[in-house]
Amino acid sequence: MFSEQNAKAGVTFPQGFKAAGVRAGIKKSGNLDVAVIYTEKEAAVAGTFTQNAVAAAPVFASKKVVQTGTAHAVTANAGCANACTGEQGAADARSMQLITAQELGCQPDDVIVASTGVIGVNLPMDKMEKGIHQAVSELDEHGSENAGKAIITTDTYSKACATEVEIGGKNVRFGAIAKGSGMIQPNMATMLCFITTDAAIDSSLLQKALLEVVEVTFNMLSVDGDMSTNDMCIVLANGAAGNAKIESEGADYDTFKETLLKICRGLAERIASDGEGATKFLTIHVTGTKSFADAKKIGMSVANSPLVKTAFFGQDPNWGRVICAVGYAGVPMDPEKTVVKFGGIPVYAGGVGAEADEEALRAVMAKHDIVIEIDMGSGESEATVWTCDFSYEYVKINGEYHT
Amino acid sequence: MFSEQNAKAGVTFPQGFKAAGVRAGIKKSGNLDVAVIYTEKEAAVAGTFTQNAVAAAPVFASKKVVQTGTAHAVTANAGCANACTGEQGAADARSMQLITAQELGCQPDDVIVASTGVIGVNLPMDKMEKGIHQAVSELDEHGSENAGKAIITTDTYSKACATEVEIGGKNVRFGAIAKGSGMIQPNMATMLCFITTDAAIDSSLLQKALLEVVEVTFNMLSVDGDMSTNDMCIVLANGAAGNAKIESEGADYDTFKETLLKICRGLAERIASDGEGATKFLTIHVTGTKSFADAKKIGMSVANSPLVKTAFFGQDPNWGRVICAVGYAGVPMDPEKTVVKFGGIPVYAGGVGAEADEEALRAVMAKHDIVIEIDMGSGESEATVWTCDFSYEYVKINGEYHT
Repeated sequence: MFSEQNAKAGVTFPQGFKAAGVRAGIKKSGNLDVAVIYTEKEAAVAGTFTQNAVAAAPVFASKKVVQTGTAHAVTANAGCANACTGEQGAADARSMQLITAQELGCQPDDVIVASTGVIGVNLPMDKMEKGIHQAVSELDEHGSENAGKAIITTDTYSKACATEVEIGGKNVRFGAIAKGSGMIQPNMATMLCFITTDAAIDSSLLQKALLEVVEVTFNMLSVDGDMSTNDMCIVLANGAAGNAKIESEGADYDTFKETLLKICRGLAERIASDGEGATKFLTIHVTGTKSFADAKKIGMSVANSPLVKTAFFGQDPNWGRVICAVGYAGVPMDPEKTVVKFGGIPVYAGGVGAEADEEALRAVMAKHDIVIEIDMGSGESEATVWTCDFSYEYVKINGEYHT
Repeated sequence: MFSEQNAKAGVTFPQGFKAAGVRAGIKKSGNLDVAVIYTEKEAAVAGTFTQNAVAAAPVFASKKVVQTGTAHAVTANAGCANACTGEQGAADARSMQLITAQELGCQPDDVIVASTGVIGVNLPMDKMEKGIHQAVSELDEHGSENAGKAIITTDTYSKACATEVEIGGKNVRFGAIAKGSGMIQPNMATMLCFITTDAAIDSSLLQKALLEVVEVTFNMLSVDGDMSTNDMCIVLANGAAGNAKIESEGADYDTFKETLLKICRGLAERIASDGEGATKFLTIHVTGTKSFADAKKIGMSVANSPLVKTAFFGQDPNWGRVICAVGYAGVPMDPEKTVVKFGGIPVYAGGVGAEADEEALRAVMAKHDIVIEIDMGSGESEATVWTCDFSYEYVKINGEYHT
């Protein structure tokens, strides 16, 4: 169901959604940098946001929109984060809502706004105004691809997906675009992710489903342990599919949530895989803990260890660094009961290194996608964390001084 | 008082201590790799150790020695951590004690043992035995320099210091050797640090002083956020100075603790400055918090941010990344009240970037030693954290696969 063709359709795959991405001149590269997503039919809206105490201006503006329960549009830009910009930043985020509402004929409080890029720089509002004007004029049922490109920063490609499921006897569609790359360890929401669906669903149930799904998808993702000031994950559900509105938990809600889960998991995996400078995609599966929280702590400790990340960059099956990061995760452990596997091959068990087939282990380490299994042998809970390696390229991308 | 000459004297500066460092063939490089420090006169001993749940065998062995309150010797090696080595590892650590005791004519439980290097590899005990034998035969009042070299791994130089103070009308000497470099975010103790003094002091007071000093020195240090399996900080006090034994708190204890603090702070700074691949030494001074713990959390969050560390590597005055890391530290903050300075120059205040003299800021960023001041404006507490930048060289050192 996650076909290549559907993926391209992205946020415009569900009925009643249009999108556009244009060049407003905010990115220095001259690439697409302003996106608008629009549903004429009012949509229930849900959102999760960064927990960083230094949240960006658009985060505050969009939180208010989510509180109203409904929205018509999303306006997002890359190239400038509008973070640490004080009163001017708040005014600029509001202006993004006002300009979009004016162009679309909706209310400013119906417009989610998002920004990503450099911190501490004011938005060039003249360029923004022209960009929104142009994007609205180009809104199109095939506009998701451009919108996806307009929200990326150091991502090497735009993440998009789409799918269709049956809910209450009706075909219901979902689509999404997302961006990640650097400053990525979401805690409650992630970078930027916009999900659309033509399902009819109550906004408080939509929020419930989103929170639960984000907890086990985007919140399990780390590129570099840095939680951004601008993280945001938004779902718009406009009801155009004509299903009986989901107003309580049950089979329809379960199908809806399950689909949302698949979308978010797929995007989280791709964001980890496309982390800044990444050459490896690492899935860390922690089992045998007393709680999900313990398993997550251990997984994140391993995912954020620079020594683990550089070892995988060097294709070094250095389980010592993995078990060291497990050991300082702050979860009580019994080293004797703990088992670590790389690509299914045991490398640590019974408190010591396991005799591994060196040839087979070398083949695992040479792969792009590597699964690290850590069984703590102390309980029934588990968690999966996604991350990438740490390469020269990461240092290059973030150590280059652009005046 | 921290003269260059004294520094070289290191752990053999205090009366009654001898040391040696020899080549036992444990390091692949063939460099010095086994060190012995010895005091014929029994010494009070105190120690702090890693909190990593996967502690190495020598950590367990040395904890038992510290519990007895007295010791005569330290035997340490680099090139092999004797961590994750199970029962064999425990037996090997015990053998290090037995061999040393046999050579010196003391009890095995009088011998502190320590190892640093690769995790998951067994100690080559034949080489170890010959090494200890040779080191004991070379024990010398000028042996600290070689002992210091024998405990380093990827450090670019051996850290040593020595000093003399008056306690109870007697000249009392202190000396120390330490190693750091990678896998460095101690939590309770640090990497390897051996401190000697000829002061006479009760072992429980010695332990108290050490714990309090380590809390604000080695525990405030991070190279890469990775807490090692082998961290250990040991003090031996043999009483040879002839001062009236310090058996209660008071002026003598204060002088003793103050001196210990200066030694540990100096070594912590040098370990940060010589972090793996480091090109910058960063002192992060956090003020205006409600507690020391809050200030430490903020300092560590900034110190461990790969985006902050790569920015300083690139000499980029990117305060946005610093304030972002402050924001996700998990301490309530008021961005409007927060002030950030680089090298004394305000870069963030009142919730927005400050107008900084670009020329002056560029000069600050070009320096090797840079002070980052973060005033949270919300209390009277403060803390200082030391770290280094993140360079290509760090990735190279840790990403190279040595089979």
